[in-house]
Amino acid sequence: MESAMSQPTETPYEPTERTIPTRSRERASYDRELVHSILDTAYVCHLGFVRDGAPVVLPTLFARVDERLYVHGSTGSRPLRMAGQADPGLPVCLTVTHVDGLVLARSAFHHSLNYRSVVVHGTARQVTDPAEKRTALDALVDHAIPGRAADSRPADAKELAATAVLRLDLTEVSAKTRTGGPNDDPADLSLPYWAGVVPVAVTSGTPVPAADLAPGTPVPDYL
Amino acid sequence: MESAMSQPTETPYEPTERTIPTRSRERASYDRELVHSILDTAYVCHLGFVRDGAPVVLPTLFARVDERLYVHGSTGSRPLRMAGQADPGLPVCLTVTHVDGLVLARSAFHHSLNYRSVVVHGTARQVTDPAEKRTALDALVDHAIPGRAADSRPADAKELAATAVLRLDLTEVSAKTRTGGPNDDPADLSLPYWAGVVPVAVTSGTPVPAADLAPGTPVPDYL
Repeated sequence: MESAMSQPTETPYEPTERTIPTRSRERASYDRELVHSILDTAYVCHLGFVRDGAPVVLPTLFARVDERLYVHGSTGSRPLRMAGQADPGLPVCLTVTHVDGLVLARSAFHHSLNYRSVVVHGTARQVTDPAEKRTALDALVDHAIPGRAADSRPADAKELAATAVLRLDLTEVSAKTRTGGPNDDPADLSLPYWAGVVPVAVTSGTPVPAADLAPGTPVPDYL
Repeated sequence: MESAMSQPTETPYEPTERTIPTRSRERASYDRELVHSILDTAYVCHLGFVRDGAPVVLPTLFARVDERLYVHGSTGSRPLRMAGQADPGLPVCLTVTHVDGLVLARSAFHHSLNYRSVVVHGTARQVTDPAEKRTALDALVDHAIPGRAADSRPADAKELAATAVLRLDLTEVSAKTRTGGPNDDPADLSLPYWAGVVPVAVTSGTPVPAADLAPGTPVPDYL
């Protein structure tokens, strides 16, 4: 565990050639708190890796613990097997995106999305330390439903053995965000088209109990 | 334009080594209508490509026209430049994911997500035909807001020249879905933990007019 566990949140991530965008640089940020908030509120990430020279992008559950991300899966899944076989690990790109609004401009050209995204470049390594693996698995459950890990049956030895966990350190990281209304050309402002933003949000509904749930089991407070 | 424009929807996509999952095969589908419906209701895709041997995954607007996907961006953006320079194009993986629910099992191990995802493998090529480029740009606007392309100022020659469009044919394609409640081990069913599904959905809110919108401009019916 040679890498930093945590960093002061006021210290931004160091930009690199890969994390400095070629365009719309004003939308990029290396702010640690912003990056954490974008990561912590997303249910899935998109994990990219290279297989036989070609890119593969898979949606994956993930969790953050300080300056580390964890993803997990069956020991038989492709990226997890590949990361276990590769030394020092598997080069990956992990991306998280929230869509916040549809931006309608008078011109087709200036239509856009309001969004918040994070892109992490790095090397994913298999977690072999049993304590770190348990911490990661708890974090994966608590990421989507804070408080749930302590209110469920922990993994037993067989389940732990069947689960592979990858770690990706948050070192080469950037956020990108767009907010606000359309940026129409001045000459287009008098055109008769409606312009503005349609807000978009992810909402969760009323919990639906399992068909075989014992009657009277209360819905937990964390839901 | 050697590839098929459209196919009967009853003909499924042909599975390939890359689109047959190594696990949870019962969740995979090659059904054309299912794939189209997952693609058509997503605001963004995650586009993966390889740069200097490492994976890159970027959130991107996209649209479907029959059996083709289009993504667009500034002629200066990395994947679009790379696809323009590569012959015959840029190997990509384009992935779309909807999260439909959080699945809470009695055991931490069986926690899951309900989701619908599509993964497309292929080669992205720059669109050079002006008519196809216009069709693609209209589709990109109408993808998020059906009916909007006809109700905005079309791109002029300068805007068309500044925009690059990539085409990706839908040939190597699979969907993966999970639905339903938790799959707990029989021995866990009597544990005192709540189990079930928390539904998750993307919703759009009330349109917010641009600050400089002329007073009295009606909100269009398609919103």
